[in-house]
Amino acid sequence: MTRKQLPQPDRAEIRVEAVLQALGEPVRLQIVRALADTPEGIACGEIELPVTPSTRAHHLRTLREAGVLTTHTEGTRRISSLRREDLDALYPGLLTGVLSADQ
Amino acid sequence: MTRKQLPQPDRAEIRVEAVLQALGEPVRLQIVRALADTPEGIACGEIELPVTPSTRAHHLRTLREAGVLTTHTEGTRRISSLRREDLDALYPGLLTGVLSADQ
Repeated sequence: MTRKQLPQPDRAEIRVEAVLQALGEPVRLQIVRALADTPEGIACGEIELPVTPSTRAHHLRTLREAGVLTTHTEGTRRISSLRREDLDALYPGLLTGVLSADQ
Repeated sequence: MTRKQLPQPDRAEIRVEAVLQALGEPVRLQIVRALADTPEGIACGEIELPVTPSTRAHHLRTLREAGVLTTHTEGTRRISSLRREDLDALYPGLLTGVLSADQ
């Protein structure tokens, strides 16, 4: 099965403003929380979200382009996971702090 | 000298999305960095920023309304400081992570 990684910034290209903007939206935060609970990655459609598929795709793309998550294809599926190692290296504590917020 | 605190959310009213949105803007992040270096607070006009006074006021207000900073008047001066204790209590690590980002 072909596995292809969708375009994303390298660790050195990640900007904190973009990460914060990406995280500062309720649905995107919900996606990040779901991914945090599933380190092995999750198929995009499997995250329960109160939005249309196109809005979902938009949010996933925003998170990917900011460097918050990585997405690869497995056949026709798109599997996303948090770039926890990159974010923890760049901004130690940020993700943990965000995830500790009351929902 | 009369000292008055400008309106701000109580700790329990602070929302992580609003905090992230407030922090996710270059000029506002510059303000937060300046305040982090000055725990005793700083007069708004004394932070060097590449923006007009009205834009500066807008950014300070956004940060205050999100719960990131607190502002009080001292006579005609407005002194702002980070709500570090509140933010560290709500989102342990978040502020430290943000401040550790390369500028």
